[in-house]
Amino acid sequence: MAEALGGFVEGNPDETVTSFAKIEHGKKGQLCFLANMKYEHYLYDSNASVMLVAADFKPRGPIPEGMTLVRTPNPYDALAQLLAYVKNKKKQFRRHRGRCRIAWSAKLGKRVWVGDFVTIGAKTQIGDNTRICDNVTIGANVKIGSECIIYPGAVLFADTVVGDRCILHAGCIIGDDGFGNVRQEDGSWKKIEHLGNVVIGNDVEIGSNATVDKAPMESTIVGNGARIDNLCVIAHNVKVGENVAMAAQCGIAGSTEIGDRCILAGQVGVIGHLKIAPDTTFCAQSGVIGNIKESGGVYVGAPAIKHRTFMKAYAKFKKTGEE
Amino acid sequence: MAEALGGFVEGNPDETVTSFAKIEHGKKGQLCFLANMKYEHYLYDSNASVMLVAADFKPRGPIPEGMTLVRTPNPYDALAQLLAYVKNKKKQFRRHRGRCRIAWSAKLGKRVWVGDFVTIGAKTQIGDNTRICDNVTIGANVKIGSECIIYPGAVLFADTVVGDRCILHAGCIIGDDGFGNVRQEDGSWKKIEHLGNVVIGNDVEIGSNATVDKAPMESTIVGNGARIDNLCVIAHNVKVGENVAMAAQCGIAGSTEIGDRCILAGQVGVIGHLKIAPDTTFCAQSGVIGNIKESGGVYVGAPAIKHRTFMKAYAKFKKTGEE
Amino acid sequence: MAEALGGFVEGNPDETVTSFAKIEHGKKGQLCFLANMKYEHYLYDSNASVMLVAADFKPRGPIPEGMTLVRTPNPYDALAQLLAYVKNKKKQFRRHRGRCRIAWSAKLGKRVWVGDFVTIGAKTQIGDNTRICDNVTIGANVKIGSECIIYPGAVLFADTVVGDRCILHAGCIIGDDGFGNVRQEDGSWKKIEHLGNVVIGNDVEIGSNATVDKAPMESTIVGNGARIDNLCVIAHNVKVGENVAMAAQCGIAGSTEIGDRCILAGQVGVIGHLKIAPDTTFCAQSGVIGNIKESGGVYVGAPAIKHRTFMKAYAKFKKTGEE
Repeated sequence: MAEALGGFVEGNPDETVTSFAKIEHGKKGQLCFLANMKYEHYLYDSNASVMLVAADFKPRGPIPEGMTLVRTPNPYDALAQLLAYVKNKKKQFRRHRGRCRIAWSAKLGKRVWVGDFVTIGAKTQIGDNTRICDNVTIGANVKIGSECIIYPGAVLFADTVVGDRCILHAGCIIGDDGFGNVRQEDGSWKKIEHLGNVVIGNDVEIGSNATVDKAPMESTIVGNGARIDNLCVIAHNVKVGENVAMAAQCGIAGSTEIGDRCILAGQVGVIGHLKIAPDTTFCAQSGVIGNIKESGGVYVGAPAIKHRTFMKAYAKFKKTGEE
Repeated sequence: MAEALGGFVEGNPDETVTSFAKIEHGKKGQLCFLANMKYEHYLYDSNASVMLVAADFKPRGPIPEGMTLVRTPNPYDALAQLLAYVKNKKKQFRRHRGRCRIAWSAKLGKRVWVGDFVTIGAKTQIGDNTRICDNVTIGANVKIGSECIIYPGAVLFADTVVGDRCILHAGCIIGDDGFGNVRQEDGSWKKIEHLGNVVIGNDVEIGSNATVDKAPMESTIVGNGARIDNLCVIAHNVKVGENVAMAAQCGIAGSTEIGDRCILAGQVGVIGHLKIAPDTTFCAQSGVIGNIKESGGVYVGAPAIKHRTFMKAYAKFKKTGEE
Repeated sequence: MAEALGGFVEGNPDETVTSFAKIEHGKKGQLCFLANMKYEHYLYDSNASVMLVAADFKPRGPIPEGMTLVRTPNPYDALAQLLAYVKNKKKQFRRHRGRCRIAWSAKLGKRVWVGDFVTIGAKTQIGDNTRICDNVTIGANVKIGSECIIYPGAVLFADTVVGDRCILHAGCIIGDDGFGNVRQEDGSWKKIEHLGNVVIGNDVEIGSNATVDKAPMESTIVGNGARIDNLCVIAHNVKVGENVAMAAQCGIAGSTEIGDRCILAGQVGVIGHLKIAPDTTFCAQSGVIGNIKESGGVYVGAPAIKHRTFMKAYAKFKKTGEE
């Protein structure tokens, strides 16, 4: 294991572990890791059998008896590799068909797994090794790449395109109508019909119960490598850049473009028709109402302003309440 | 086409198009529109075959060769009509029964379409031409009007009433228990049971994964023509007025009344037991904690105050952070 | 009825009612209640047959003819008991199997009710009298206690543990992967696999379309008696204390601990790795970015500060906008 992780061992090289635990809970037979030095003090009382530590870790106390240290360049990264290794050992690609309804004209690749109570529409194409879980609904003319997982209860509307190695989490809705209405003179609303679609790149994750609306015309786009968390809302014609990370409950209104590698913390809202420069960070609950032209900035507040400016102003604001 | 839209043609009256595109992307064979003059400059470089423009549009440059202009009173409205026309050509009302479970005592109207893995409870009534998509769950004693669409994964609990021409988007939950709990002396919570229902008017849209809770007694009401976007939460005993528009991720707490034609931008929260006057607008992320008695106001902030007041105060707040 | 509620009757002890109504709507044959004295004036015009009032209620006007008063120590509590009584009369525990797919190795208790299009995975155990509604997906090795209700469309992933008497509302997702990603040097994200689970105590409610993510290792925990409303997001490794009440659309980020009996109003966000003391109250839309060490405080704002401080500061802020 240490070899695979590019690490080296201090202690018993034949030590075996059967599960993972947090450093404060580690027991015999478990593997723990120390990435944040704030938690170092737990190490000295731990009964964990194996402890992942940084290559240059210098203990400030005696290592507990029976604990084997594995030094790696980056313990957190090493942990991620180990978790992925165990997960992948459990993963099996095999052909399976549950009690589902698959249109005759749909084309399924090799070793596609289809659960129970799934529907797959006409002319839909699904790539090799992709897994469609129970109670998923997939419309007509959808294209899904290879090695994807579509978790239970997800819905993919007609004409949706999904790349390779994507994970669509449970209950997410891809390609539903956007929220488009034209006000009439009597105060009522006329619906804008939506004839476009959603195009999702490779290596994308869409969170549980999140929604990505289709465009009235053309496509709503989620770029390669983007990570979108639970209960986010991506409106019609939005373009989410590559490797964007968006935490839970964010909402992006219509036609806005989020630049590559932007990070949005939880509950951020961005109004429509904006362009956000690449590498922008919005702190939690930010409300973004203007374009961001410079890359690399950090913003917070509603309306969102520079983080430093907001925090300084808020400290003064707080003081006025304490007087 | 121009005739149907009340417009007139400059160019080739026999020009044909096969799809729609945004003005900056238009190619030969496509129809584009110019509603916002900010985008006018794209027109002069466009290869679109047909361009919808305003009746009084005066080009500031030469119209590209091969482009036919169609002048209409309102190009955006004309586009909405065209999209609806194409959508309706695709729509077919026909009787269909998938692999579903329909109670014997349920009554389905003419040409009702029922998808796969749908359940429909006892004594439920569904009007003519309504379409129930795959994996929908409908409880007992529900009434759904005619020409509705219930998209995949939606859940309608017992006793729910839905008017005509409604669209319930994928994964929305109508008529679940409200969040009602009475605190006990030991700090625990006793659940308030909910025996009421939800009543939805005509021409209403409820967004994907939104929820509308039933009342403990009497009804939670959504008025005619209301448009509610994805992931909104309408709590027990709320009354949403006619033609209200509510963007994504809004939350309305228990027993609050939202007046007719109010507009709520995204992520607005309104606490319980309030009355909001008709024609009120709340900007995104507003937090509403008091009644609004005057119609027609625009509010923002948390707590929400007049838009003009908030923006002026926020400008000063920002300055204190820049000092 | 009065006896069961610990109350006494003024009027006709043989009066019968067939339904409930709000005090302003009460008609003959209906039961109303007066808990908030703000609504007292409705009583004198009401046609309700029975009115629940406080034991020490002193009418300020003549009681309408034909109205019977029932005095109880706490009218709202009495109402809750009556609603529960009617609800329970409707509840029937009986064995039922719809058109579902149940793994051979799953173990179902006595009188377990399983709806249509449900899947139940290998080795899963379900306690007596539990009801699994239509279109629910339950993974392998899940443990669900007795007298639970799992409403339509809910998803429980493998290894989830649910206590007794829990209610999991429609469309909620329990045990999906947390949002864990390690940034790589090229700006892309490597997924942290999640091998832990979710453990839910007894008497817990999880709202419709809410999500509770599993931990990468160990467990995400929801304590006994906690009430979580619709569209809340509980991230990986979070610990929600006992009898916590969390209104709609709250988000709790990874590894945060919410102390026992805390109350979170709607749309509150709490960032990751925090500890919140017991009995803390956060008002709606609070954004919590620091630990709370003292019990019993009331906070609001983003970042959240003491309620009194915030409201005073906000009043001054508002004034600067009115100048």
